[in-house]
Amino acid sequence: MIYIVGIGPGDKRYLTLMAIEIVKNSDMVVGSKRALELFDIEEDKKCYLTKNLREELKEIINSTKNKNINIAILSTGDPCFSGLLKTILSLGVRKEDIEVISGISSIQIAAAKLKISWEDYEIITLHGKEENRKKLLNLIKNNQKVIFLPNNLKEDIEYLINNGVNPEKEMTVCENLTYENERIVRDSLKNLLKMDFSYLCVCVLEGDE
Amino acid sequence: MIYIVGIGPGDKRYLTLMAIEIVKNSDMVVGSKRALELFDIEEDKKCYLTKNLREELKEIINSTKNKNINIAILSTGDPCFSGLLKTILSLGVRKEDIEVISGISSIQIAAAKLKISWEDYEIITLHGKEENRKKLLNLIKNNQKVIFLPNNLKEDIEYLINNGVNPEKEMTVCENLTYENERIVRDSLKNLLKMDFSYLCVCVLEGDE
Repeated sequence: MIYIVGIGPGDKRYLTLMAIEIVKNSDMVVGSKRALELFDIEEDKKCYLTKNLREELKEIINSTKNKNINIAILSTGDPCFSGLLKTILSLGVRKEDIEVISGISSIQIAAAKLKISWEDYEIITLHGKEENRKKLLNLIKNNQKVIFLPNNLKEDIEYLINNGVNPEKEMTVCENLTYENERIVRDSLKNLLKMDFSYLCVCVLEGDE
Repeated sequence: MIYIVGIGPGDKRYLTLMAIEIVKNSDMVVGSKRALELFDIEEDKKCYLTKNLREELKEIINSTKNKNINIAILSTGDPCFSGLLKTILSLGVRKEDIEVISGISSIQIAAAKLKISWEDYEIITLHGKEENRKKLLNLIKNNQKVIFLPNNLKEDIEYLINNGVNPEKEMTVCENLTYENERIVRDSLKNLLKMDFSYLCVCVLEGDE
């Protein structure tokens, strides 16, 4: 069985007991260095993912096929939100050979930090989904509240401004949530464009009053 | 400080280490019997919520004001999705006096069980929000994929059918997720109407091909 295990936003304290249990009982645990460090596991069970995520996962899945072992694949956040579930299904793995363990998404941490309810927001990811930029633009133009995961924050903001969003419009950027260098900045799009952010960001836009 | 602690869908294994830590370090832990049972805490720290949630929370918050104690209020699922954050803010508690601990929402468990990615779905709650029924209706008529929390499942389905949704349209109802009596049923709206479900349901509708 392949377990796709959500590990939450990064801070170990957001692991669920279920994630810890599944990882403990797996024969092989696959993940980035940062993800694997969250768990107390024997070195010989670890399998590090490096750069070419998709290719590496494909190889691991093929080489363990029909071997009757339990593999835990660690997925940042929730595997079902902009996570590894899609990647693994796209490799042709059958749904009945997978079990998914939900994890806390960075979207949820952003809502918790800002004390807002995400049922009031449109949620959208631009991660590798350029076509969603237009959808985001329309939501903002319709004055809807939006939480989004940027693809490339600078380019995403430039796109919005170049397509008619007011550069003075305010946005909150939640960066590196739950990490030591967590930062939450609220400023105009124009000013945010001048700042540098890591790739771990969640952006929140309120509708105008 | 008031901690609003997400406890996930019901199964203890979906607790985060953070939820356990905060509850352990709180002077008082407020929740339903079912929620309190998830934690290993001294009886004299427990404060049971029964029927009149809002009034009881109001009394607890008022009686502990200025007392410099840490209160953990347990919220099923994620406090920021159809959860207790809104209730507590509506009681006039200031955002700076609250800390929110994210939990796994039943929406996420439904996605995990069905192995779907919730970024592809419109997410909407009808819990105490009758005005959202119309929004749901429009989404379905526009053939969008939707995950929703029903208010009263029978009435919600009747509303959809009475307003022009095809009674043969299929829907998946995920009931009592993570509990021993968990049940996942996929059937036509017409047939679902004849079945009885508990109030703990998540419904999933695919767009038609």
